[in-house]
Amino acid sequence: MKNICLLGATGSIGEQTLDVIKAHGDKFRLTAMTFGKNIEKAVGIIETFKPRYVAVGDEQTYKKLKQISFTYTFETGIGEEGLIEAAVFQETDIVVNALLGSVGLLPTLKAIEHKKTIALANKETLVTAGHIVKQHAKKYDVPLLPVDSEHSAIFQCLQGENPKHIKRLILTASGGSFRDRTRQELEGVTVEQALHHPNWSMGAKITIDSATLMNKGLEVIEAHWLFDIPYEQIDVVLHKESIIHSMVEFHDKSVMAQLGIPDMRVPIGYALSYPERLSFEEEKSLNLWEIGQLHFAQADFERFRCLRFAYESGKIGGTMPTVLNAANEIAVAAFLSGQITFLGIEDIVEKALERHQVILKPSLQDICEVDKEVRTFVQTLLT
Amino acid sequence: MKNICLLGATGSIGEQTLDVIKAHGDKFRLTAMTFGKNIEKAVGIIETFKPRYVAVGDEQTYKKLKQISFTYTFETGIGEEGLIEAAVFQETDIVVNALLGSVGLLPTLKAIEHKKTIALANKETLVTAGHIVKQHAKKYDVPLLPVDSEHSAIFQCLQGENPKHIKRLILTASGGSFRDRTRQELEGVTVEQALHHPNWSMGAKITIDSATLMNKGLEVIEAHWLFDIPYEQIDVVLHKESIIHSMVEFHDKSVMAQLGIPDMRVPIGYALSYPERLSFEEEKSLNLWEIGQLHFAQADFERFRCLRFAYESGKIGGTMPTVLNAANEIAVAAFLSGQITFLGIEDIVEKALERHQVILKPSLQDICEVDKEVRTFVQTLLT
Repeated sequence: MKNICLLGATGSIGEQTLDVIKAHGDKFRLTAMTFGKNIEKAVGIIETFKPRYVAVGDEQTYKKLKQISFTYTFETGIGEEGLIEAAVFQETDIVVNALLGSVGLLPTLKAIEHKKTIALANKETLVTAGHIVKQHAKKYDVPLLPVDSEHSAIFQCLQGENPKHIKRLILTASGGSFRDRTRQELEGVTVEQALHHPNWSMGAKITIDSATLMNKGLEVIEAHWLFDIPYEQIDVVLHKESIIHSMVEFHDKSVMAQLGIPDMRVPIGYALSYPERLSFEEEKSLNLWEIGQLHFAQADFERFRCLRFAYESGKIGGTMPTVLNAANEIAVAAFLSGQITFLGIEDIVEKALERHQVILKPSLQDICEVDKEVRTFVQTLLT
Repeated sequence: MKNICLLGATGSIGEQTLDVIKAHGDKFRLTAMTFGKNIEKAVGIIETFKPRYVAVGDEQTYKKLKQISFTYTFETGIGEEGLIEAAVFQETDIVVNALLGSVGLLPTLKAIEHKKTIALANKETLVTAGHIVKQHAKKYDVPLLPVDSEHSAIFQCLQGENPKHIKRLILTASGGSFRDRTRQELEGVTVEQALHHPNWSMGAKITIDSATLMNKGLEVIEAHWLFDIPYEQIDVVLHKESIIHSMVEFHDKSVMAQLGIPDMRVPIGYALSYPERLSFEEEKSLNLWEIGQLHFAQADFERFRCLRFAYESGKIGGTMPTVLNAANEIAVAAFLSGQITFLGIEDIVEKALERHQVILKPSLQDICEVDKEVRTFVQTLLT
């Protein structure tokens, strides 16, 4: 029985993690969880899974939680302190970090210090502080297990392999909602159109990031840190069916790939059960003859400028990926609230990157300050 | 440095094995080899690789070999005895069995007894005597490494995996020379048309077997023995590009696949270097965006009757696969020499299977007798 702490229980990844825990109650138990404001959803989760510890996002939500009478008692916490208490909760074996944004960084580091295995779905942890997190995980000898379908695919391809034989990582990208449109056809697209992802059911932010390929760009940076591979050896290929989730090419010309019908429960389940695999036997198998064709195309850096920005930021390193991520986060929020156009997202990211003076080996504090400063700057562009 | 014995040095797999040995002279040395009659080719190989032992197919070829003056001395042998002497040659670490036909069986068993690692390209070894060979390999704790691209792909997909999580093996089949033709369009096809395989450069027998899908059927039987998987959990999918070489589905819905540009040196190299991988770095990588599309279709048992015969023979077991293989060998030779039509191959195989009284746990002698008896019977159909 593995004890799970779930950071970000009411989000999309959180929900699917709970699905896996529920379907495999003989293997997993939820011992700690956190959520932001969605108290209605959280109450249902608490009563179903009966975690020993629950942290909420803010004072107001905390008060609401305290007014509810539950059928059992559990410890509680608030805000960043609560996230950290959850992450280091003593009974926990694995911390699933499904938080959105840079708030996910500190709990990861603290969980590592307490020797918890990390199942990482929070992009910012590696994008903004990959050098710190990797060093920390190495120091405390803690495994970092990917939850993203792409990184999970690569991780699966590397099982039983000697990393010295890796020639290239190849991340597949669906191309998102607008994959078949030219740049010109992207002018004037609506939020509703952008939120309609063809293959995956995900949150709003990541769905927009899929359409700009910023999501893939952030994944390239994550892959660089997770697998310790230079950017020159990471490729992206457009693959609209999202059946091949990613690949690894070795020096002997062999390419290993992990495939499946898009379903986030598979990589989540793999991270939770690793090195074993779960059984979803009752469910439909992937039969390629039913799909008929798989398509591939080059990920054009001019068509998808955000992907280029991500590679460039990653190669420069230091605080550059923090700028990329922070500027993108504010820009996407601005697009979702109707303040800017879809193509405006990349313009904002570009402006933020251009003006930034990189700090090459930033401390956590440097990263936090740059993050804040960039968000403030981007707000000035919006008003 | 690994010492290699190559059984069948002048054939297609033999030649490509020598390519790998030559390109990686720091890792491999040819210590023993055998060939049938192709003395011209053999002389070149002997002088290039300087093996310590050479066996030839028959007395006549032996005499020719003895008349040639070589720049160094080596031991020699003839016929089946020679094959066995080569297979157990003391310096050898790995025996690459690239023989054609049931002559490959005994040397494999003897090599196993002498604790040589077996790199198996000879189909008959497992098709006709899988139960004996597997038991033998287990008894002497000797690894059986696949050389076929499909089995190598599956073997690669299984690295680092727990076999208990396997749900299904999925072998890909190019469909061979006539993959886009209906059964009606197969009437009257010529030998020349049949020998034109779209993806792989192979010998004549295996190219015809690719077109009938008998090759895939034999591979299904081999996969059953190599990986200890019931026939019900082995699928075949048509995939005309031959880029995905085969796949394994696990109980968690993940499918692992091995891909590559068709090149037999890759699986040969993997078998020789296992568990490490070689470096063919100077060569072209697989870029799926250059290929654009991968196609998949169901392998129809009515369109490809030989595939159905293979599954049925495998499931019955015992001497049935020996009948399948022997009848097919004679039928293919008859097609190649213009005695029967292309569709006549499957008619002959069907007739041989229908009249056979299966022996369920055959000894080696039973297998040899059935093999001979079937060949004699098939000859009577041809006259």
